[in-house]
Amino acid sequence: MTGQKVLSDITSRTLDAGEYPLLSKIKDPSDLRDIPIEQLEELCAEIRKFLIEQLSSNPGHFASSMGAVELTVALHYVFNTPYDRIVWDVGHQAYSHKLLTGRSGKFHTNRKLGGISGFPSPTESEYDSFTAGHASNSISAALGMSVASALKKESPDRNIVAVIGDASISGGLAFEGLNNAANTNSNLLIILNDNDMSIDRNVGSLNGYLAHLTTTKAYNNARYNVYKLLRKAHVVNEKSKGRILRFNNSLKSLITREQNIFEGLNIRYFGPFDGHDLPRIIRILQDIKDLKGPRILHLRTVKGKGFQAAEDDPAVWHAPGKFNPDNGERVRSHSKDSDHPKFQDVMGKTLVSLASKNDKIVAITAAMPSGTSINLMQEAFPKRTFDVGISEGHAVTFAAGLAKDGMLPYVAIYSSFLQRAYDNIIHDIAILNLPVTLCIDRAGLVGEDGVTHHGAFDLAYLRAVPNMQIAAPADGETLRSLLYASQLPDREGPWAIRYPRGTCYDNGKMIENIKVGTGKQLSEGTDVTLLTIGAVLDDSIQAVKELEKENISIAHYDMIWLKPLDEQILLQCAESGRPIVTVEDGSLEGGFGSEVLEWLNDNGYSIPTIRLGLPDSFVSHGSVSQLKGLCGIDRQSIVEAIRRAAKGGRTRTVKSTKEEQK
Amino acid sequence: MTGQKVLSDITSRTLDAGEYPLLSKIKDPSDLRDIPIEQLEELCAEIRKFLIEQLSSNPGHFASSMGAVELTVALHYVFNTPYDRIVWDVGHQAYSHKLLTGRSGKFHTNRKLGGISGFPSPTESEYDSFTAGHASNSISAALGMSVASALKKESPDRNIVAVIGDASISGGLAFEGLNNAANTNSNLLIILNDNDMSIDRNVGSLNGYLAHLTTTKAYNNARYNVYKLLRKAHVVNEKSKGRILRFNNSLKSLITREQNIFEGLNIRYFGPFDGHDLPRIIRILQDIKDLKGPRILHLRTVKGKGFQAAEDDPAVWHAPGKFNPDNGERVRSHSKDSDHPKFQDVMGKTLVSLASKNDKIVAITAAMPSGTSINLMQEAFPKRTFDVGISEGHAVTFAAGLAKDGMLPYVAIYSSFLQRAYDNIIHDIAILNLPVTLCIDRAGLVGEDGVTHHGAFDLAYLRAVPNMQIAAPADGETLRSLLYASQLPDREGPWAIRYPRGTCYDNGKMIENIKVGTGKQLSEGTDVTLLTIGAVLDDSIQAVKELEKENISIAHYDMIWLKPLDEQILLQCAESGRPIVTVEDGSLEGGFGSEVLEWLNDNGYSIPTIRLGLPDSFVSHGSVSQLKGLCGIDRQSIVEAIRRAAKGGRTRTVKSTKEEQK
Repeated sequence: MTGQKVLSDITSRTLDAGEYPLLSKIKDPSDLRDIPIEQLEELCAEIRKFLIEQLSSNPGHFASSMGAVELTVALHYVFNTPYDRIVWDVGHQAYSHKLLTGRSGKFHTNRKLGGISGFPSPTESEYDSFTAGHASNSISAALGMSVASALKKESPDRNIVAVIGDASISGGLAFEGLNNAANTNSNLLIILNDNDMSIDRNVGSLNGYLAHLTTTKAYNNARYNVYKLLRKAHVVNEKSKGRILRFNNSLKSLITREQNIFEGLNIRYFGPFDGHDLPRIIRILQDIKDLKGPRILHLRTVKGKGFQAAEDDPAVWHAPGKFNPDNGERVRSHSKDSDHPKFQDVMGKTLVSLASKNDKIVAITAAMPSGTSINLMQEAFPKRTFDVGISEGHAVTFAAGLAKDGMLPYVAIYSSFLQRAYDNIIHDIAILNLPVTLCIDRAGLVGEDGVTHHGAFDLAYLRAVPNMQIAAPADGETLRSLLYASQLPDREGPWAIRYPRGTCYDNGKMIENIKVGTGKQLSEGTDVTLLTIGAVLDDSIQAVKELEKENISIAHYDMIWLKPLDEQILLQCAESGRPIVTVEDGSLEGGFGSEVLEWLNDNGYSIPTIRLGLPDSFVSHGSVSQLKGLCGIDRQSIVEAIRRAAKGGRTRTVKSTKEEQK
Repeated sequence: MTGQKVLSDITSRTLDAGEYPLLSKIKDPSDLRDIPIEQLEELCAEIRKFLIEQLSSNPGHFASSMGAVELTVALHYVFNTPYDRIVWDVGHQAYSHKLLTGRSGKFHTNRKLGGISGFPSPTESEYDSFTAGHASNSISAALGMSVASALKKESPDRNIVAVIGDASISGGLAFEGLNNAANTNSNLLIILNDNDMSIDRNVGSLNGYLAHLTTTKAYNNARYNVYKLLRKAHVVNEKSKGRILRFNNSLKSLITREQNIFEGLNIRYFGPFDGHDLPRIIRILQDIKDLKGPRILHLRTVKGKGFQAAEDDPAVWHAPGKFNPDNGERVRSHSKDSDHPKFQDVMGKTLVSLASKNDKIVAITAAMPSGTSINLMQEAFPKRTFDVGISEGHAVTFAAGLAKDGMLPYVAIYSSFLQRAYDNIIHDIAILNLPVTLCIDRAGLVGEDGVTHHGAFDLAYLRAVPNMQIAAPADGETLRSLLYASQLPDREGPWAIRYPRGTCYDNGKMIENIKVGTGKQLSEGTDVTLLTIGAVLDDSIQAVKELEKENISIAHYDMIWLKPLDEQILLQCAESGRPIVTVEDGSLEGGFGSEVLEWLNDNGYSIPTIRLGLPDSFVSHGSVSQLKGLCGIDRQSIVEAIRRAAKGGRTRTVKSTKEEQK
């Protein structure tokens, strides 16, 4: 973590044809379709070997992609991609897809600055049909494509396939998509890749229902076999396939005593089938691919399939970091940061400690117990901890209900995923001024997960919400102290505490009297005012030290609170007339620097201000330090901004409109 | 519409005991519980008579509340409110609830400034358990309350009842709530008030499914009767009720060949029953109220019940305006505004006209075809128009899929409801820079619908999103011209066009060459720069005229575009050194004025700027003109701000940091 803009080696490599005889030949899926069907299982083995080799040294999402190898091979084998569309729901599972669509030689650049994205990305490849960073969007997007194809009367019929996991399909957006898909007659095939896992173990009653479907698998298989038999005997032909399958659905209710939920929603259902039985999946896909109307194919797969350690502990192996490809031992990183705790762990441990004394505290996560360290609460207070699955909107409104009747809920959600709960924050929490605390993890730049995962907008979009109180602690002590303050009896209204991915400086202490809207001064100075908030603190402190050597004297304040701003600090700084530099790891459009400008203007001050923050464009993937450099919020950028401000010198304080404003 | 702050008559009135012998006696639900059960249907008749009388002269939401009279009486009769909680999902149906909970004497103030809210409002009454302006939140909030009650080990057990319509339950948030409710063992009763309508006719396959359930009603009734019989014969007692009903569920699968979707999700289902059969609903509620675990009671009701005109055309009678209580003739308003078209109609008609020449155009609404005038597209181009039901997130992602494959989608959603699709806008549209046009209706202040419905935040939260291009037309010509420009071949990336509720000045013309990021000058002047955006234009023009008489000379610009800002205009204004007044009908935190400050600062200008806009607090209900006055964005407030700015005089233009900034 040097802060330097080191570019990765992103040149393309050629796969060793001896080691990967089949995979090395595949430049695009048409090459795949030339491989005899009986060799495809060998190809799957090569893909797994390649993924293990690559991901053991260049970390990424491992277990999901290992589980989807056969499914991916089958899809590109049967469907005419890229004319036919595959819409992946969350890209964790899509590495094999990248390998089969011309990116095996680039795979060592996965998630690196300038390299390929860890998620499907339409700007990277025409085979990547849609953005796939946030769960549950595939059905809606695929339905749109399917309707577009029908409206354009494309010939041949374009097939659209959404591939969605069992956790993603329980999200409200997926349900909305399903509820609407049934009203169309388009070529939409939904593949439910069901491994009973999201990142952590899946929850919710739909999940129980899917497990139940699996127990009735015998019947479903029987039904499919009847259909096959009819077809073999030429009772069914291409044209009548749809009719017969509908008949089969009626047949089903004659045989069993159950109606399928999906069929209740008027979507034809096939399965569950073994998602690793490649020849069978191919046959099934060929059978059902040209049926009209929305269909669900339910495949059971094993997360981490083909690598024992990952099969045994798929949650850990979701994104395991580096590991030994031979024995599955995970490699501990020995960076200097490893002495420091993670922000998320400071949050989780503090919450457990506070909850042991305050029985109003409850914790909520949306399918991210390990990612947010809410698992610590889960272990300590299982009855007061709720994993609601991938449903951020529900998580926030559920918390609002809890708070309305006297509890103190802490909702831990990643910043970019919290965008899904914006209305819930406004309508269900803020209007009633309820004491819900949003623990916003992965705020600011997240690094390798890239464009869909950066928490770039939270400061801007939360600031507009009345009653919200928003803090961005930059170290363990401040985070711990804010959490402590948030559960004191005098705490009022909604709080958002946002902190980044990764580790923090932590002295292990806690301040018991941290106050809402109170920042702190870190250095005195006469030349420039430096106002920072959140995880830009370390770079800012280093910048101040560096500039001391140049005799630039800086008054540095860690503002801690975005809303309310510390007006005493602002008043002091404004009165001093020193030029101001603001630094934040959120969007410059409407964020912290913008709020400082509003305060200065509305209070009649005119102080030249240089604002550093995330640009008005989407930020790609790379290490956090690389991206900070690119966005101009690293140490060097802060140094340069302060130098520029110092050169501008003092300006006259204009207070012309202060008294006259209402 | 005078702009004056006229307060309504909000004093309490006493009901005439002769006319309303039962209703006039009810101060709170305990009075209701003293009424003999056989008189309750008379009470229902009095409530309907009262609603007709009141709403015919003071308009509000009529048909929903008329349909929920028996349901509401039954709930307060059976449940121990306010200890037991009733959580209404959207408040349209809750007028009877207001009458029974101490607000009949205040009902003439409904939706008026200082009067009672048209929706349940916990700040108004302890009987209003939760905010109820946006659909589908009731199950999540009620589940939170139910879990809170269990954690607090309250005794007696607190019953929590969510009352949700058949349209609301199809929203993704409701599904997320259902999916999670099944995992708890709390006292959660979900009442599905099913009238096959939302505001317009309900859509989606879940709706088809609910209709199907109704056709199987005979069986469900039979099942319930078996249970009643067992109970009467003392085979079932209080303790074994739950067990027997579970047994009944199994019995059901022996008798019928169907599994209920809700039971598939592990939620016990009762119904459908006639929601107007009061004695029966009371008996059923008494039977099932103390069962453990989540339950759904499905009631079929008639929207507008008891008023023939409303039963015949419930969509129109959702919010019919004034009407003749005797014959149901609706009273046309004869305000001066009635000569002007509505913004929404200019949008709808323009879209139809453009779509007739451009076959890429498709239109999407989320359950608001009449409210957004997308019904005009529905009539003209039924195959290119999609009502996706209450699912704003899906609407936006569906549009993204359509745009990705070559269509030009127009998504018409109310501003405050679009908050639900924030992540969809960022993740599914903006990252891929897709040509989706958001037609944001009801932007700014909406008047009588109040706090949950004002479109206060769209300018602020959309501005932070990269690639978004945001316009706020203030008249028919500009709206029409923007729509025209949005479908030209050179149009790129996502657009948001936001406009208010109500009528607009419209000359019927269209400018064919309106350019992105281009505002227009309306008056020249030397004393003050006035920068306005959106629906504050009329008041601003009047203010400029008024101040001309005082010899204050104003350069007034209608900026039209929030993003990108018209930098040529800003440069001219900044160079002139005139003090600036900005006016917008959105949040001051991060909105238009804030963006002007950013531009001035980042370009090295220091110009005293007075920003008018919505305050950092939630705005209540009242007429739009009253609320504009209260928020300080009416003509008078603009006049005063310009006077203050003019007094401040010219200031020195400070350009110290311009060149040095990157």
